[in-house]
Amino acid sequence: MLSTMQDVPLTVSRILAHGSTLHGETEVITWTGAEPQRRTFAEVGRRAARLAHALRDELGVAAEERVGTLAWNNAEHLEAYLAIPSMGAVLHTLNLRLPADQLTWIINHAEDRVVLVNGTLVPLLAPLLPRLTTLEHLVVIGPGDLSTLADARVRVHDYEELIAGRPETFDWPSIDEREAAALCYTSGTTGDPKGVLYSHRSLYLHSLQVNNAEAFALSPGDIAFPVVPMFHVNAWGLPHAAFMAGASLLMPDRFLQPGPLAEMIETVRPTIGAAVPTIWQGLLAELDATKHDVACLRTVIIGGSACPPVLMRGFEERHGIRVVHAWGMTETSPLGSVAHPPAGVSDDEAWTYRATQGRFPASVEARLIGPDGEELPWDGESAGELEVRGPWIAGAYYGGAQGEPLRPEDKFSPDGWLRTGDVGTITPNGYLTLTDRAKDVIKSGGEWISSVELENHLMAHPDVAEAAVVAVPDDKWGERPLATVVLRDGVAVGYDELKAFLGERIARWQLPERWAVIPAVPKTSVGKFDKKVLRRQYAEGELDVTLLE
Amino acid sequence: MLSTMQDVPLTVSRILAHGSTLHGETEVITWTGAEPQRRTFAEVGRRAARLAHALRDELGVAAEERVGTLAWNNAEHLEAYLAIPSMGAVLHTLNLRLPADQLTWIINHAEDRVVLVNGTLVPLLAPLLPRLTTLEHLVVIGPGDLSTLADARVRVHDYEELIAGRPETFDWPSIDEREAAALCYTSGTTGDPKGVLYSHRSLYLHSLQVNNAEAFALSPGDIAFPVVPMFHVNAWGLPHAAFMAGASLLMPDRFLQPGPLAEMIETVRPTIGAAVPTIWQGLLAELDATKHDVACLRTVIIGGSACPPVLMRGFEERHGIRVVHAWGMTETSPLGSVAHPPAGVSDDEAWTYRATQGRFPASVEARLIGPDGEELPWDGESAGELEVRGPWIAGAYYGGAQGEPLRPEDKFSPDGWLRTGDVGTITPNGYLTLTDRAKDVIKSGGEWISSVELENHLMAHPDVAEAAVVAVPDDKWGERPLATVVLRDGVAVGYDELKAFLGERIARWQLPERWAVIPAVPKTSVGKFDKKVLRRQYAEGELDVTLLE
Repeated sequence: MLSTMQDVPLTVSRILAHGSTLHGETEVITWTGAEPQRRTFAEVGRRAARLAHALRDELGVAAEERVGTLAWNNAEHLEAYLAIPSMGAVLHTLNLRLPADQLTWIINHAEDRVVLVNGTLVPLLAPLLPRLTTLEHLVVIGPGDLSTLADARVRVHDYEELIAGRPETFDWPSIDEREAAALCYTSGTTGDPKGVLYSHRSLYLHSLQVNNAEAFALSPGDIAFPVVPMFHVNAWGLPHAAFMAGASLLMPDRFLQPGPLAEMIETVRPTIGAAVPTIWQGLLAELDATKHDVACLRTVIIGGSACPPVLMRGFEERHGIRVVHAWGMTETSPLGSVAHPPAGVSDDEAWTYRATQGRFPASVEARLIGPDGEELPWDGESAGELEVRGPWIAGAYYGGAQGEPLRPEDKFSPDGWLRTGDVGTITPNGYLTLTDRAKDVIKSGGEWISSVELENHLMAHPDVAEAAVVAVPDDKWGERPLATVVLRDGVAVGYDELKAFLGERIARWQLPERWAVIPAVPKTSVGKFDKKVLRRQYAEGELDVTLLE
Repeated sequence: MLSTMQDVPLTVSRILAHGSTLHGETEVITWTGAEPQRRTFAEVGRRAARLAHALRDELGVAAEERVGTLAWNNAEHLEAYLAIPSMGAVLHTLNLRLPADQLTWIINHAEDRVVLVNGTLVPLLAPLLPRLTTLEHLVVIGPGDLSTLADARVRVHDYEELIAGRPETFDWPSIDEREAAALCYTSGTTGDPKGVLYSHRSLYLHSLQVNNAEAFALSPGDIAFPVVPMFHVNAWGLPHAAFMAGASLLMPDRFLQPGPLAEMIETVRPTIGAAVPTIWQGLLAELDATKHDVACLRTVIIGGSACPPVLMRGFEERHGIRVVHAWGMTETSPLGSVAHPPAGVSDDEAWTYRATQGRFPASVEARLIGPDGEELPWDGESAGELEVRGPWIAGAYYGGAQGEPLRPEDKFSPDGWLRTGDVGTITPNGYLTLTDRAKDVIKSGGEWISSVELENHLMAHPDVAEAAVVAVPDDKWGERPLATVVLRDGVAVGYDELKAFLGERIARWQLPERWAVIPAVPKTSVGKFDKKVLRRQYAEGELDVTLLE
């Protein structure tokens, strides 16, 4: 028996209409290097309508068409975030850190005919143009060197000129909430990139969850500070969630170095920030070195890869900023879990919980699958691959405009759950601890060694700036850990000391025999440790490895 | 183009599974008059499974069947809240304050075959039994005088005996989120009661919103205290929302007098309470008279009818409890708006906003319709009837198991919006101020006079305990206000003084000429002023009216 409630879809256009009216005076503030650009949500709403008119009437963008954005975090990118899905097209955020070949492949696969690009990023896109088979229009946002476009066969538009003088309202179409709203490709390290096609429903529900007290609880008093790029899983949902809650947004544009970040925090005074550990690590060093008033930040969300506890404690103990760990991935929109400790625990216990990947919200179902496909208990000890299910979790990848959705067996279980590729444990009260990517677990003599656990212990050593541990082949044990460390400037610490330091913290049989000092840990385009590169360097003898027995 | 996100329904069984596992140690605490009964969410989950087995296997409850509850707020009622929708049946909460005829009509209209009833409420239900045409089973929760059931033809079960020994897990069916989950009849003052049929989707989305920072922001550190009955619009969504967030629940059972309420606050220490003004008014008097430690309450939510500002200030200034106004109705699940002030306003401005009915969340669209059917601007001045639209707003009433849904013209607009019957204004930033029920507005010489405004001013007079203003016929003006006042014990204040007091606060032409002192304002079954009764008493000459020129 169907209920008699109204059948009203959950859509991005509702978020847009709400934020730009009831919260019309709320601002998005974009850092420019000089005076910040301030724009109210009401203006964003009017400009989003003008953008939609321009895209439809001038560039012929149709329903369901993918429209690319190659842009930093700024007000214009926010306008695209709201206008493109609301008009029934699909917002396709392009990761500007991808290798040229992957970026080309992705734009062609999505069949982007129109791409919005920041002027400062034109030089990055221009060399790809000859190979972009579907691209017809480049819409350039802000100043930039356009000389490289002189010979391009695409039409080039200036964003402001394109949207100027068009109507400031748009009769947003009524859309089925399961329709595609946004597209984001995973920067997969093997095979072709895979497109995750978010729906209006998934973006809306995710926004409601981001604003829940158990997640980030955005409210009109907040200034959200997404340092995480808007091309990286919807900037973790903050732009849409802030527009829904009426929270202001501080956008760093291209100024992602520790100095400017500290300055914009001091000047604009955001209350909640979000970024990957690498960014926060740089900011912490800046704050430690130079005095800044950052007391405005009530919370800093860290995700994207495991966060060293020493970084969390550094922020909290030296600068009074609470670091909150969150876990997610492109396929999970990304909110998978958030590490708020349970109520009523001691400070020590709270730290234990806060070092985990966190607890799942009601909309994310989780299970652990063991090596033989069996479901494992939530006992805090049994380690298995994490599988998740929920209304903002991908059930397939985008197969292209004409193709069927892709459901690779290693990514989706037969009953439709997402295989995360992450290995970890879950406590009886639902706290997830990820120890490794399934492919990074070190399988040593029938036991699993967690590379992340070794890395965290190593990075707690005062002389170690970064550490990455990878599996390398071993005749006797199958695999053994190789420890690669980046030392802090000007220190010289022996491997024996590091091994002894580790030996006080982990079981003897897990201690690495192979050690190498490296100048920096190789990173992927989104700042994660790229262990594939380290394994290759080891295999090809490029690392200076010392063997300790 | 459909997205490739998983198609996972939003259901009550997900809330149940989540709360009883990840938040398994969280408690529901039921007041008993003696030692409070404490039950963990894990136990509630196991008992909900046992209840579902009993209902299905022993009493033959089928999918879509309405199961009635006539119960106070307690742990067993929470079990019914979770088990009945999760098993695919429909939770039908019965308002124990309704007149016997209405209660009978409602049970028969819903075709309840099974009713769960608190032992203490059996004497209320027993006299109706001969007229309850579909009832077969009474499940009695807790002790009570069952002698009145001796001759009843229904089968009587003890709740604990019925669920004892049954399996502690249940394979909850997969349910379309638009299926009916709960049923609540409005205590309409004219015509037959109307049933609002909530869906799994509406209850789930509503729970997400209740837990948003802009609403009540429940989190695991909270103890929610729904004094508002569970038969009154799902206790404003708090039971489901708390189970979703892992917030504890304090349930007052039948102990709704000011003394016990103060004692349970002092003992169990809830952080957020919810009730209608009448309840809080009684509690405020208790707190003013007798010392209690109530510092635990961060927020008190007031809704159900307009809240006198003097009551809000009394709680805040004398007891440090923040009162938050919220508006809603049975047809809106009920969350329609919440009066958190905007960010960054002065204290005085904040009070102005807090005295409104509040701001709408993104999922509630609102519009004001003027006397001639035209849509009015949100200028804070144009007064019209409020219409709302959204995924947890009713689009029709339950037409009975065999009947079509009912869409009376005076309740639903042709384009499907709910006509609230409330008249008010909306500010440009979305704050709603309701001045009257459409039927209570006083139409005097082509102008509207707000009865609520007059009442609030009157109740601010130190000698006035309560005041109700109603329209009465007037030869010259069409209608004029009649002011009825309840004086505080032992005071004797003249009408002239009250009129002069009003005269300093409102326009001269709005001042009532007709005055009457009454012993108490008549109330409806849910504690609202029953102005229908006053109008009838006036018409029949039952009031001792003084005429002031």
